[in-house]
Amino acid sequence: MREIFHQELSQLGADLESMAHQVATAVERAAESLRHGDIIVAEQVIDADERINDLQRDIDDLCVMLLARQQPVAGDLRHVLSALRVAQTLERQGDLARHVAAIARGRYPEPPAPEPVLGLLLQMADLAVRAGRDVARLIETRDLGLAKTIEAGDSKLDALHRRSFQMILDPAHELSRQQVIDAVLLGRFLERFGDHSTSVARRVAYLVSGASLPETHDNEDADALHRR
Amino acid sequence: MREIFHQELSQLGADLESMAHQVATAVERAAESLRHGDIIVAEQVIDADERINDLQRDIDDLCVMLLARQQPVAGDLRHVLSALRVAQTLERQGDLARHVAAIARGRYPEPPAPEPVLGLLLQMADLAVRAGRDVARLIETRDLGLAKTIEAGDSKLDALHRRSFQMILDPAHELSRQQVIDAVLLGRFLERFGDHSTSVARRVAYLVSGASLPETHDNEDADALHRR
Repeated sequence: MREIFHQELSQLGADLESMAHQVATAVERAAESLRHGDIIVAEQVIDADERINDLQRDIDDLCVMLLARQQPVAGDLRHVLSALRVAQTLERQGDLARHVAAIARGRYPEPPAPEPVLGLLLQMADLAVRAGRDVARLIETRDLGLAKTIEAGDSKLDALHRRSFQMILDPAHELSRQQVIDAVLLGRFLERFGDHSTSVARRVAYLVSGASLPETHDNEDADALHRR
Repeated sequence: MREIFHQELSQLGADLESMAHQVATAVERAAESLRHGDIIVAEQVIDADERINDLQRDIDDLCVMLLARQQPVAGDLRHVLSALRVAQTLERQGDLARHVAAIARGRYPEPPAPEPVLGLLLQMADLAVRAGRDVARLIETRDLGLAKTIEAGDSKLDALHRRSFQMILDPAHELSRQQVIDAVLLGRFLERFGDHSTSVARRVAYLVSGASLPETHDNEDADALHRR
């Protein structure tokens, strides 16, 4: 019984790794579609999101089956519940990558924003890509140094997000309303992608170290944003 | 043991009801702060979000304790896992209500948008309020008719969200960039609030009826939006 349980747990680990890699690829391609106005790559992200959603359902089913059949306690229970939540968060990140790609596709062959706004959004996208890759490596290696790197990257992403509003508001930059809409949404999607990466990083760190880490909430930052 | 378990399950139900009512109140007040530019009410929403977050942590702890100590299977397991997820979704809805209130507060004493954009956003807010109330009643009563009402309301909310972009893009409406930013974010927050209500409704319906209902994804709608 324990033998089977540990096989199933390692299957769960492998599925999560695979899911995290697919999300990392999705956000890489979303960033590429934004940078190069590449509609083919944008379509790939949108199509691949279905597979990420399927994988989440598989992980969900596996977790429920494990809980029902093996009735794990203590560390094993914590492990299965964390897997459930990490899969949910990764699924959400897949949606966000898809949204970024959908905007790139919707504006094709134009970029969704002129410089310097586009440049700032691309910097945000690069940070999201790094976060996606680091999350995949963290799930694979359990190297807690990566959890700190992910959190630090997320702070940078938040700072760029705040800067994006200043830039959009600056009348020196000519922007159509469509461009303002796209820049606001792209900024929001990328910032949320970063939040979710931090949330996964904290959960994995909690799982590995047993340390209690607070949940990430999408609060203070947003309040500061609107308190201009 | 079963006796205690059922007491704990009913505690869990009571906590979820309380949380859903607090979220309904939060979105009601967020809508009010938007409608009347009421900064006191906006502050109340922002402060109350902490209590919603605390309640989620309590429910989380109770669920983990139930899983570890009682090792439920079948329907009871499904019940506890659903509670975990519903609490997560409600927590997220509290954040979104808080974001709406933060924008209302940030623009005080001006409304965040001129008419007719404000009117449309208020219609969206009213639908979100109805969804919040219906979710609380659904959790309380398990009346599956409400689940359908919530889904239908969410479709209307999505339609209004699409309309909000058309309105923002219409040059006949004078809007500053700040107003465009606010309208885009308010629309997004309210639309997501509706998505989460549908997600809770489906999960409760699944729990009550045993019927399999697909997860709600934030996909098709967004893709359509960007494919102008």
